[in-house]
Amino acid sequence: MEKVNCDILIVGDGPAGGVSAVTARMNYPEKKILVVREFEEQLVPCAIPYVFGETLGSTDKNIVPCGARVDMGISSMVAKVLDLDINTKVAYTTASAISFDKLIFATGSKPFIHDSLRHALVLDGVFTIAKNKEIIDKAKNYLEDKQNVVVVGTGFIGVEMAVELATSGKNVTIVGGSKHILKGSFDSEIAAQAEEILVSKGVVFIGSDRVVEVIDNNGDNIVNGVKLKSGIVIDADVVILATGYKPNTELAQKVGVSLGHYGGIWVDEYMRTENHDIFAVGDCSARRTFLTKVPSKVMLASTSSAEGRVAGSSLYGLKYIKGFTGTIAIFSTMIGDIAFSSVGVSEDEAQEAGVDVVIGSFSGMNRHPASIPDAQKQFVKLIVTRNGGQILGGQIVGGSETGEMINIIGLMIETGLSVYKARSMQVATHPMLTAAPTNYPIVMAAIKAIKQIEQRQK
Amino acid sequence: MEKVNCDILIVGDGPAGGVSAVTARMNYPEKKILVVREFEEQLVPCAIPYVFGETLGSTDKNIVPCGARVDMGISSMVAKVLDLDINTKVAYTTASAISFDKLIFATGSKPFIHDSLRHALVLDGVFTIAKNKEIIDKAKNYLEDKQNVVVVGTGFIGVEMAVELATSGKNVTIVGGSKHILKGSFDSEIAAQAEEILVSKGVVFIGSDRVVEVIDNNGDNIVNGVKLKSGIVIDADVVILATGYKPNTELAQKVGVSLGHYGGIWVDEYMRTENHDIFAVGDCSARRTFLTKVPSKVMLASTSSAEGRVAGSSLYGLKYIKGFTGTIAIFSTMIGDIAFSSVGVSEDEAQEAGVDVVIGSFSGMNRHPASIPDAQKQFVKLIVTRNGGQILGGQIVGGSETGEMINIIGLMIETGLSVYKARSMQVATHPMLTAAPTNYPIVMAAIKAIKQIEQRQK
Repeated sequence: MEKVNCDILIVGDGPAGGVSAVTARMNYPEKKILVVREFEEQLVPCAIPYVFGETLGSTDKNIVPCGARVDMGISSMVAKVLDLDINTKVAYTTASAISFDKLIFATGSKPFIHDSLRHALVLDGVFTIAKNKEIIDKAKNYLEDKQNVVVVGTGFIGVEMAVELATSGKNVTIVGGSKHILKGSFDSEIAAQAEEILVSKGVVFIGSDRVVEVIDNNGDNIVNGVKLKSGIVIDADVVILATGYKPNTELAQKVGVSLGHYGGIWVDEYMRTENHDIFAVGDCSARRTFLTKVPSKVMLASTSSAEGRVAGSSLYGLKYIKGFTGTIAIFSTMIGDIAFSSVGVSEDEAQEAGVDVVIGSFSGMNRHPASIPDAQKQFVKLIVTRNGGQILGGQIVGGSETGEMINIIGLMIETGLSVYKARSMQVATHPMLTAAPTNYPIVMAAIKAIKQIEQRQK
Repeated sequence: MEKVNCDILIVGDGPAGGVSAVTARMNYPEKKILVVREFEEQLVPCAIPYVFGETLGSTDKNIVPCGARVDMGISSMVAKVLDLDINTKVAYTTASAISFDKLIFATGSKPFIHDSLRHALVLDGVFTIAKNKEIIDKAKNYLEDKQNVVVVGTGFIGVEMAVELATSGKNVTIVGGSKHILKGSFDSEIAAQAEEILVSKGVVFIGSDRVVEVIDNNGDNIVNGVKLKSGIVIDADVVILATGYKPNTELAQKVGVSLGHYGGIWVDEYMRTENHDIFAVGDCSARRTFLTKVPSKVMLASTSSAEGRVAGSSLYGLKYIKGFTGTIAIFSTMIGDIAFSSVGVSEDEAQEAGVDVVIGSFSGMNRHPASIPDAQKQFVKLIVTRNGGQILGGQIVGGSETGEMINIIGLMIETGLSVYKARSMQVATHPMLTAAPTNYPIVMAAIKAIKQIEQRQK
């Protein structure tokens, strides 16, 4: 067995592992850093749906480039870490014994399949959206000459898959247990807008129902369809299970590292496990919400990257005090040519959490004047505490600028900004790029929230 | 003479006046509000360059809609306020005597013409970019069958005019006194990128020179060209003077309202003149920079709108404490299909002001992976105090998302955020909408700035 030495061992090479490595390199230039990953090529996780349609068209166009890292002097190894001795600080792969000083778990997540659907995984034509080139290539090839697809799950991967497949000519049905798609991220009136576009792309959406059986009529191990709780049977050549992800903690559990809620590795604010030589980042770590610090199921590459930055600079003492805390669940997606984005708590979540909130919303155009050729509608909703007017959440529907606008609201949440400050914020506006300065939608939504507060005070 | 009564009289109806009116309506529902404007139709000021090319094509497509305001119960009058009696609180137009309780000057700005070029204004074919439909229509009609255009001034209106005219087939030369275009907003290495695009669009750019004479060879009152300080003579059928704007304070001066530096009406933080019944907002008011609070020449509709929001809620006591202070000079423009945006102080300005700064910059792509079809380069530069790492300025070059990204940096400046907090901020990312989460450019630029600080500490 080959012996390998390093100072910092990172197990896993998704966004969290990669950012941890680069950050560690910048902060500890003298340390030897080794990243161990299972596969030669790593997919960009959030772009996986787009390899199925014409946007990317192939997994070859969705590979994370690693060249820069080699130049930075970060070593890589393609192997699977099978075991660890935390006391002697050695990790074992089939061929190597890797001694380390600090270890970062960045083992990511894997598809979550409800027990009642596990039987389906053996059938040809049933796929999960694993972050694995081989599986995705197989699914894509299989889909090539098939027509009828059922997507199970109405989270953002499910919805993006459905739109991409429908746009490339398949008959797609998407089934979810909630009344609306993208539950948790969008309130129902906004999800309804997204559903309209979904339907306009030819996707059949069935909500408030669930798949109870994946059907193999002929007993030939080839899927024929799905049966829903309501009794509906849908014929299908391909069934895609997009029912979420769960932390991949196989290795951590094996060696007795404590887990948190929802099965992620327990970590403190600086991504340290109880043993300060062992860290965990990304989807395999346990997250908390920013508002109540209760466990969160949110899995986002952007959150993982932020965690990698914290871990990568906290390996040998806390070099930087962490700026913000708890996941604000900030994300965007495209449905057709409309962008939907969300951050913080939704109105529904605020109510469930017992927060006394008011809503400020504003509808306008993303260009000014509205006669600018590519002008689109733009809608902003802010969720704001009634007492003090602190911004807790936001949702935006609009053009592609929405992807960056939500980051403005994200920063407002992270800095604890109130609508009273937001109302006089200065913004850049330009006819071809933004809404009018007189009607800048985040400011207008803040003003609307203030009015709500004042009305309720009367 | 007709007698008119109102509680709140707003003189001028650009972005500052309009937002003041709407804000006052929301805050003082019982008050009678009257807006007096000089022209029936008001142009969207920042979109004026786009009526000259194919983007809008006509001033008719660039009119501020007023319908909503009528529904809100805000009265309008088309007239010019010729005189005021501040003691008795009466404003006079040709036909009316308007009594008021509070008055807001929102008289805007007018083109600034250097004394040495005033002689040119009488010539046919010489135009300024006044915010006046009649003048703009005249210029547009005159340009129709002309080919050779000289634009004088390399601020953003000059540059936008040059690009729009070149794109619609004119031969355009732009002349500026500075070495680079857009001075004050962009550092030279970024301005150089903008110049490259300008030149690629067929525009001839002459910097570090200035027009000393506008030529009328035949003495027929029709312009033939311009002569530069360097001796160069450029033939021209049309000369556009885009040499900046100055506060329009004719009326304020007539009635003895004190002015500040650069000729704007002096106001306190709440846009009040020395007389707390008289306010001034927008380009006619005197502004201060956020950093040193010295006078600022910046004129932006977005700043004017923010001022309108402050004035409109401060007419009868200070209802809301102002969130932010001083203009952060935040703006965007498009040059070709590349967006350039800027906020706060530039590196040059920081050095001139004697601030000890470091620079963090990062170059990446605005989509991820880079194989996403519409991916463009994206560049972010942050100007950061060496001590404490506070963000003072930013410049971005990229796709249309740049227009909203600069607002993230703007908020960082307004909230006094440091790069130490910015480094772990959470951002939404999506393949079709943003850079990769692992390389989000504002965060990466913050990290680069931190490295600069650390290197200089050694």
